[in-house]
Amino acid sequence: MPETMRCLVKHHAGPGLELTERPVPEPGPLEVRIRVTKAGICGTDRHIWEWDDWAASRIPVGIVTGHEFVGVIDKLGSAVTNYKVGQRVSAEGHTTAGVDYNSRTGNAHIATDTKIFGIDRDGCFAQHIVVPAENVWPVHESIPDRVAAVFDPLGNAVHTVMAADVSAKTVLVSGTGIIGLMAVTVAKAAGASRIFATDINPPRLALAKKLGAIEAYDAREGDGWIEDVRRQTRGEGVDVVLEMSGAAGAFDQSFRALRNGGTAALLGLPAKPVTFDFTEHIIFKGCTVLGINGRRMFETWYQMEELLLSGRLELDEIITHEFPLSEYRAGFETMISGEGIKVVLGIG
Amino acid sequence: MPETMRCLVKHHAGPGLELTERPVPEPGPLEVRIRVTKAGICGTDRHIWEWDDWAASRIPVGIVTGHEFVGVIDKLGSAVTNYKVGQRVSAEGHTTAGVDYNSRTGNAHIATDTKIFGIDRDGCFAQHIVVPAENVWPVHESIPDRVAAVFDPLGNAVHTVMAADVSAKTVLVSGTGIIGLMAVTVAKAAGASRIFATDINPPRLALAKKLGAIEAYDAREGDGWIEDVRRQTRGEGVDVVLEMSGAAGAFDQSFRALRNGGTAALLGLPAKPVTFDFTEHIIFKGCTVLGINGRRMFETWYQMEELLLSGRLELDEIITHEFPLSEYRAGFETMISGEGIKVVLGIG
Amino acid sequence: MPETMRCLVKHHAGPGLELTERPVPEPGPLEVRIRVTKAGICGTDRHIWEWDDWAASRIPVGIVTGHEFVGVIDKLGSAVTNYKVGQRVSAEGHTTAGVDYNSRTGNAHIATDTKIFGIDRDGCFAQHIVVPAENVWPVHESIPDRVAAVFDPLGNAVHTVMAADVSAKTVLVSGTGIIGLMAVTVAKAAGASRIFATDINPPRLALAKKLGAIEAYDAREGDGWIEDVRRQTRGEGVDVVLEMSGAAGAFDQSFRALRNGGTAALLGLPAKPVTFDFTEHIIFKGCTVLGINGRRMFETWYQMEELLLSGRLELDEIITHEFPLSEYRAGFETMISGEGIKVVLGIG
Amino acid sequence: MPETMRCLVKHHAGPGLELTERPVPEPGPLEVRIRVTKAGICGTDRHIWEWDDWAASRIPVGIVTGHEFVGVIDKLGSAVTNYKVGQRVSAEGHTTAGVDYNSRTGNAHIATDTKIFGIDRDGCFAQHIVVPAENVWPVHESIPDRVAAVFDPLGNAVHTVMAADVSAKTVLVSGTGIIGLMAVTVAKAAGASRIFATDINPPRLALAKKLGAIEAYDAREGDGWIEDVRRQTRGEGVDVVLEMSGAAGAFDQSFRALRNGGTAALLGLPAKPVTFDFTEHIIFKGCTVLGINGRRMFETWYQMEELLLSGRLELDEIITHEFPLSEYRAGFETMISGEGIKVVLGIG
Repeated sequence: MPETMRCLVKHHAGPGLELTERPVPEPGPLEVRIRVTKAGICGTDRHIWEWDDWAASRIPVGIVTGHEFVGVIDKLGSAVTNYKVGQRVSAEGHTTAGVDYNSRTGNAHIATDTKIFGIDRDGCFAQHIVVPAENVWPVHESIPDRVAAVFDPLGNAVHTVMAADVSAKTVLVSGTGIIGLMAVTVAKAAGASRIFATDINPPRLALAKKLGAIEAYDAREGDGWIEDVRRQTRGEGVDVVLEMSGAAGAFDQSFRALRNGGTAALLGLPAKPVTFDFTEHIIFKGCTVLGINGRRMFETWYQMEELLLSGRLELDEIITHEFPLSEYRAGFETMISGEGIKVVLGIG
Repeated sequence: MPETMRCLVKHHAGPGLELTERPVPEPGPLEVRIRVTKAGICGTDRHIWEWDDWAASRIPVGIVTGHEFVGVIDKLGSAVTNYKVGQRVSAEGHTTAGVDYNSRTGNAHIATDTKIFGIDRDGCFAQHIVVPAENVWPVHESIPDRVAAVFDPLGNAVHTVMAADVSAKTVLVSGTGIIGLMAVTVAKAAGASRIFATDINPPRLALAKKLGAIEAYDAREGDGWIEDVRRQTRGEGVDVVLEMSGAAGAFDQSFRALRNGGTAALLGLPAKPVTFDFTEHIIFKGCTVLGINGRRMFETWYQMEELLLSGRLELDEIITHEFPLSEYRAGFETMISGEGIKVVLGIG
Repeated sequence: MPETMRCLVKHHAGPGLELTERPVPEPGPLEVRIRVTKAGICGTDRHIWEWDDWAASRIPVGIVTGHEFVGVIDKLGSAVTNYKVGQRVSAEGHTTAGVDYNSRTGNAHIATDTKIFGIDRDGCFAQHIVVPAENVWPVHESIPDRVAAVFDPLGNAVHTVMAADVSAKTVLVSGTGIIGLMAVTVAKAAGASRIFATDINPPRLALAKKLGAIEAYDAREGDGWIEDVRRQTRGEGVDVVLEMSGAAGAFDQSFRALRNGGTAALLGLPAKPVTFDFTEHIIFKGCTVLGINGRRMFETWYQMEELLLSGRLELDEIITHEFPLSEYRAGFETMISGEGIKVVLGIG
Repeated sequence: MPETMRCLVKHHAGPGLELTERPVPEPGPLEVRIRVTKAGICGTDRHIWEWDDWAASRIPVGIVTGHEFVGVIDKLGSAVTNYKVGQRVSAEGHTTAGVDYNSRTGNAHIATDTKIFGIDRDGCFAQHIVVPAENVWPVHESIPDRVAAVFDPLGNAVHTVMAADVSAKTVLVSGTGIIGLMAVTVAKAAGASRIFATDINPPRLALAKKLGAIEAYDAREGDGWIEDVRRQTRGEGVDVVLEMSGAAGAFDQSFRALRNGGTAALLGLPAKPVTFDFTEHIIFKGCTVLGINGRRMFETWYQMEELLLSGRLELDEIITHEFPLSEYRAGFETMISGEGIKVVLGIG
């Protein structure tokens, strides 16, 4: 066993990351160490790379970044009995002390004391990562590494779709970024009857149609699409909106396309407060709005595994690129430029 | 049977109502005619009385007003078989053609084609009202007329409380107007464990405590109350918010007092769009928001009857005044001045 | 308009039906008359044909039989405004007076006073049928008559699947008769991840696999299949059982194949009481059991339309035969012999 | 710190328990040791005392018995950080390895690998007990020891009531043993509108009325009570049945008293399979049946705390006796004879 490992570190309070050497970490009694095989680059990692205001306020300089990955357990903490060295695993990136209401009732994903890999503690853009044993997720043998590497964002999409309950329903996916595109294929696999999508990026809209949307509208072309959606839904609007864009204008449009009594699941994060007509969009219509954060621990993970085992998820055109760790700059640039959608780093 | 009846009509496009004579209406084949005994004055009736912008844009001059009432069936339409002359009844004020999605799935209260008594067709401030037979609600013999006269707003409170599911939960009632006060006693009867209330009206806050709130905060005194609520709820916030005020500031405060994963049911109507931090208040917290409109037809009515039969609803200090129809001006003034809370007109 | 019509009547208290002439019925004020195009032969019709104990105790001699159909409205009752002559429609076969708890809360399918076409009042094996306007279901233009003719049993399958909530879950379909086979394709379309099926009829099991079951077990070959199901479901069992057989032995086996905390939806009717281990199968396991009767009015109908519009329902090999009304004997024989699965009569 | 402690041990394969000395146990890294203050005698302990077939097949001779208790933490395992020595606590008696579906999704109470204190590992009829830290429940300062000592059975009652969702509903409690009586006061506090109870023990029935049942029927007096329940519930039956008796006859009667579409929560354990009419009682009626086992970890515990903080639970006449540990024989005899209802042992 070597004593050091290569990893991507936030080396200074400014843009970029540095590929450097660090001591291989040791697991505590209740932790396991995982040799990382592949890791996904997340939108959050882009913020950290670009060192925007959010990153500057949240990320400790010196941290090993990254939180989406798959690997193989290579060392168990002294008190860990449920896992074995050699097991192929991924891990939930949110950790909690397990003492607040949500942690103790199956909703640790919205605990008040959440810490996240690659943000609050060392992450997975590294040859090894140490995680709490209770965060480990054994990967089904039929699921390839490149998919298991992106369980984290796929889990966001699955959680959004499953919370909204799309089975036999019409669905509007508002925003076809990485997670929005995943939501299209997930919603279809989960039983949505007919899917509509909006975005302002024509290639992504084209991909949304390929993945199963029956209509993909360019939101820059006015509100006409809302009428088209209504026309196809008995004049009433869709049953479900999955808001993945975080754009203020999309909020208003999406709720106008939602039928009375419909459900809107919100995952996209508006950068600032939105001026919103609660009376018209929510109260008079009797709608339900669901805030979606992270992934349920671990109900979402079981659902994600089942959807993958169904053979109906189409991820090949979403996970577009893979680079070796040494070419991480190319990886980030491919993702930031929009040339790539989901970019994976091959590490181990 | 006399040929004319006394009724309160919106006689001109301006403030006030006129007590006048109209022909007694005849029921169509599927309607029943009810001799009205008592009728409640609603906040909506106040808008109609004061002839504000909303009223001017919505209310047809010449209409008989009023939509909350109790009475006795005095004539059946030719095709009505389920009811009898002489039955004591109230009626749901929302009517629909029964053909859209919500009307056909037990959610007619949020149909797209709703018409309302006293707004879209003649109402109940009259000696007789004609209503569709399917809107009739037989009144349980143990429920007095003065309570049955206000089933409509009481149903709003019951629908809000029951949609939010308060059993064994902490609840914040934001706004202790008529329906907010009803929500306090309804939430307690429905099993809420501990109720907090906010408003800016000290006598109403005092009444909220009398009805079962363990704390009643004056929202004009800053945000300190939010900390006090958190202190009493494991530092996390309440399980449920019932927003009855429609005040923009109350939206922000109430969501800050709500725990992660909590539920907010919104009944109060903001007069205009609210600038709201969806990221902080709903998405990161994983909250559920429910738009509440009207009352479920007729699940809410059954729940309301059961809550009344439980003997736990305290309405005596909420239904404060009763005036004969001839003194309707005093009735409206008592309600508008805030001297009265719920004011009932004795008609039959 | 002719004055008489051809129809299939239960002409005597014994086996068979008679093709005869009857006066064309007139709709009451709230009814519509439909010229029947196609009608499906149901398992219930087989009981009536064979005149078993149930039929003898329930069916009035002289009734026009049949309850699954599609047709075209040819006359409106005097008070009907929502429909037009010439509309292509099907209709829900259960009628209620609309006054009990379930009828008034969106659950008329389990009302206490249900009457059924072809059982309690004249049915659809006729050139014309009269039905209450509120039972009418307009048929989407993209759905062919032979499918619309079997909305009734397809609705049973849809209601069972949707009540059990199969999205991203493993499902066992216990019994692959007509509705069981429909349940396989419905569950797959509604998002079930992996479907297992059991029956004692090899050709039907083969068809279940063709329709999407990943395994189809012959229940006559012992309990080994239960272990096989467990092996494929983390050793725990399936998330959902859809019990479509009504066989006492299948109850016991199915619950053994269900995971702790799973859901069993029961549609198949055991002919007599079942000796059942509640402690082991339901209480210790913390399971949920749902009794399924009919179809939700009309939520199931909307779901069924959406599933059909999704293009994912495979009904071609389930609706196997069509006979003209004059060859109704061949139709019944084809269905009773098992040579056909769903048999449709072409009437109009 | 003394080296030994007094405890009640199953000392031989036969009736009775022996008060003896054992070494004070040491907590493992993830465990805490609790000095026991009070402990409740459960119906399960009675089986162990009487050494019936179940006990003989399940209980290892030599085990320290008991699983309901309150105490004070007196030693922390080396890796425990969330608790402190001196904290007053109770603990959930079910432990799991945390790796199966239910353990990882907030439903550890129905895990496949559950071990129980006092049954599978040493229990709480002892001066000290060692429990996993994650099982610990801090006791609210306002809750007295005699109540905290019986959180386990009270939690059974709370889980049953909350799973069935009784708010604003009519409820039948079938069986007024210890947990049935608790269910009466819990259901009332949780918002049940009107409660009916049945049993065959007149004093317990009288107590059920005192605790809030509006009717308490002696089930030995035939089926007339079912008609009486229907008469008070619009002729339809109760909304909810809580089956606490485990008696086969009660199953049949209770379902006859349940309305179409109602919910039955089953906690009482039939000693052997029940012959049950699924067609009539569940399928035609469209009912929901919930198997109830243990208590949700830890949602039920939060609900129980809230119900206690509401001040509405009446437990004084249910927790009837307290004996010092040395008089444990009197304690068991008082419970077994039926003279006492809930009997508590004072230990520390």
